[in-house]
Amino acid sequence: MKQSFLFTKTQKETPAGEISINAQYLIRGGFVDKLSSGIYTLLPLGLRVVKKIQNIVRSEMDALGAQEILMPSLHPKENWETTGRWEVEEMYKIENEPYGLGWTHEEIVTPLLQRFILSGRDLPKSVYQIQTKFRNEPRAKSGLLRGREFIMKDLYSFHENQDDLDDYYEKVKEAYFNIYRKLDLGDITYLTLASGGTFSKYSHEFQTITDAGEDIIYICPKCKIAVNKEVFDGKCPQCGTDRLEEKKAIEVGNIFKLGTKYTAPFDFNGQNGNPLIMGCYGIGITRLMGTVVEAMNDKNGIIWPKTIAPFAIHLIQIDGGDEAIALKSEEIYEILQEKGFEVLYDNRNEKTAGEKLNDADLIGIPMRIIISKKTLLENSVESKERGSEKSSLVRIDELVNYLKKNV
Amino acid sequence: MKQSFLFTKTQKETPAGEISINAQYLIRGGFVDKLSSGIYTLLPLGLRVVKKIQNIVRSEMDALGAQEILMPSLHPKENWETTGRWEVEEMYKIENEPYGLGWTHEEIVTPLLQRFILSGRDLPKSVYQIQTKFRNEPRAKSGLLRGREFIMKDLYSFHENQDDLDDYYEKVKEAYFNIYRKLDLGDITYLTLASGGTFSKYSHEFQTITDAGEDIIYICPKCKIAVNKEVFDGKCPQCGTDRLEEKKAIEVGNIFKLGTKYTAPFDFNGQNGNPLIMGCYGIGITRLMGTVVEAMNDKNGIIWPKTIAPFAIHLIQIDGGDEAIALKSEEIYEILQEKGFEVLYDNRNEKTAGEKLNDADLIGIPMRIIISKKTLLENSVESKERGSEKSSLVRIDELVNYLKKNV
Repeated sequence: MKQSFLFTKTQKETPAGEISINAQYLIRGGFVDKLSSGIYTLLPLGLRVVKKIQNIVRSEMDALGAQEILMPSLHPKENWETTGRWEVEEMYKIENEPYGLGWTHEEIVTPLLQRFILSGRDLPKSVYQIQTKFRNEPRAKSGLLRGREFIMKDLYSFHENQDDLDDYYEKVKEAYFNIYRKLDLGDITYLTLASGGTFSKYSHEFQTITDAGEDIIYICPKCKIAVNKEVFDGKCPQCGTDRLEEKKAIEVGNIFKLGTKYTAPFDFNGQNGNPLIMGCYGIGITRLMGTVVEAMNDKNGIIWPKTIAPFAIHLIQIDGGDEAIALKSEEIYEILQEKGFEVLYDNRNEKTAGEKLNDADLIGIPMRIIISKKTLLENSVESKERGSEKSSLVRIDELVNYLKKNV
Repeated sequence: MKQSFLFTKTQKETPAGEISINAQYLIRGGFVDKLSSGIYTLLPLGLRVVKKIQNIVRSEMDALGAQEILMPSLHPKENWETTGRWEVEEMYKIENEPYGLGWTHEEIVTPLLQRFILSGRDLPKSVYQIQTKFRNEPRAKSGLLRGREFIMKDLYSFHENQDDLDDYYEKVKEAYFNIYRKLDLGDITYLTLASGGTFSKYSHEFQTITDAGEDIIYICPKCKIAVNKEVFDGKCPQCGTDRLEEKKAIEVGNIFKLGTKYTAPFDFNGQNGNPLIMGCYGIGITRLMGTVVEAMNDKNGIIWPKTIAPFAIHLIQIDGGDEAIALKSEEIYEILQEKGFEVLYDNRNEKTAGEKLNDADLIGIPMRIIISKKTLLENSVESKERGSEKSSLVRIDELVNYLKKNV
């Protein structure tokens, strides 16, 4: 994509009232636009990142044997009255109409699956969706980390007995770590024990260490697990050591053994006449985008991991007023497009070299390729990875092979 | 995908209160589930169809040079007060909070583009989104044709002068017809003159002829355009003939020259100091799914066009209790998967041949391949296109080549 085509522009100024790094960089880079507190538009660059995160999550859900659906956001009051949750503060309600807006979907997915699961042969079954959620959040803050409207993946599983849920739950844990590893968050994300709710002592969260985190966790260096402050009693519940490390972290996923909490009120029973056993598993997609920015940035901007960068290559033409440069860089852009590389091409003539390089740092595409009078004298371009200080000259006739190896 | 894996089941009974064919077949086939009046869950088969429609629409929008974004559904009251539309009946409002739910996005997209379009050099620009819309619809009916929650593509364009909008508007018309043609609706879809609003005598709708249509249109056989009853005065406004044909039709798209209706209240002005000229262009994605079902069905079920069928091939194993059949059909399924065909494989042993064929007719996948004892005696499978009466035997070692030509 040509940068002159993009309708967004980078901004030098930090937007007023946005104190979190993720909001500052995502707004300044033209990834998101703030409509209201906790409510953001995804701009072209941001939507590209979000789609890539969605595809990573989707492939892991599919590998779990979960089936993708899309449930409504308008939820009938009666569904939530069945479970006694109509009056929770998280829910936005529609004025004068018997609907609430979905902030989670147990009340919808349970009767839905009930209509199709007719015998033990139909179990276990799991379904997921990637969907916009709405949440009445009095403290909307921290940019994409805590919003009133956000994109989530929610997975629900239904089982005939506890053992079957326990097995599936372990598989979901693995799938979640696959996702964090693909986002380069694997090394700083911990399985974390948190308050369990009705049916188990603990639930599990996935917490990513960053200074922007709103949660405090205690990491056991031996067991490589963490405990949320809300249930921490000074010791690792697994090995008993009291030498845990306190860290700020962002919750990037949670998984719950719900037991019969929602199947019982809907009379969703198995062949033995008892309610089915249920699990639910969430990941905030837009929150993940914000978390990656919090975890991977420097003073100049974002440093995207290759897997979710909006483009793989930022091709930058300098001295574009010179016709030879303009022609050559256009030619290289066309070749890279043909070869299937995802390229953002900064073809803007009205910007100085310095402005272009600053924009490139802010936007944070992993591989930068610069074409200038100087590099063309050597039939070369300059290559530099975002986050690295080293740059190197690459001969133009070697560029495609070089990029095949390095992006 | 194996049919035994799918959590949905077909239903013999028509759901109570659903009188439209699209709702009946889509619910009975397991494409959608009705949560409440005008509110449906997309099930795995339905979501596959919707994603294919979205991709067709997306590719035409991209070809127009429009940039994809995703705007919020929670709309601040102040944006709608700026244009005087806060009190319209279409809008669901949030109880005790200053938000409405987006049923259209002029009030959001106009100030958004205003923040980025800073000079004439930035014009024209167009953006689109594919998004869930909410609409306070007292008469939710006709299944997917008129809902309270539905998926729409909305495109908005901004221009410095009327000529530029007029040119773009013509290009959008062509893109819309490309979309209808790709959905096999091209021959029964008419550009239709409708009431124009503030800035032009007519707006344009796209109307697809079906008996389920809620609109009445008059088709000029000479000009191949239509006139909506709401603005019809007995004559074709283009050639003057009074010999027009009255038909029921579904509105499958609309395009408006908005002029300065929204740019003026937001003071979104061009370099000449006058408000920019704006156009908006909508297509209901889920409504298109419903329209295709209304236009393409028979007494047994849906007849999907190849471009948006949930799968290209329905592979059906009969006599699966016989181990040789089960093994051979499994082998053929694996080969077709490997070759990249999209296959739904009916491997269910508990269903009779008759039940399977009825399900296949209802689900409506374009190409049906049957493996039975009888066909295997001739090292063959039986091939039949949905909507055709003819079937033929295809040798198993010829099957991949046959399908490459025919799906």
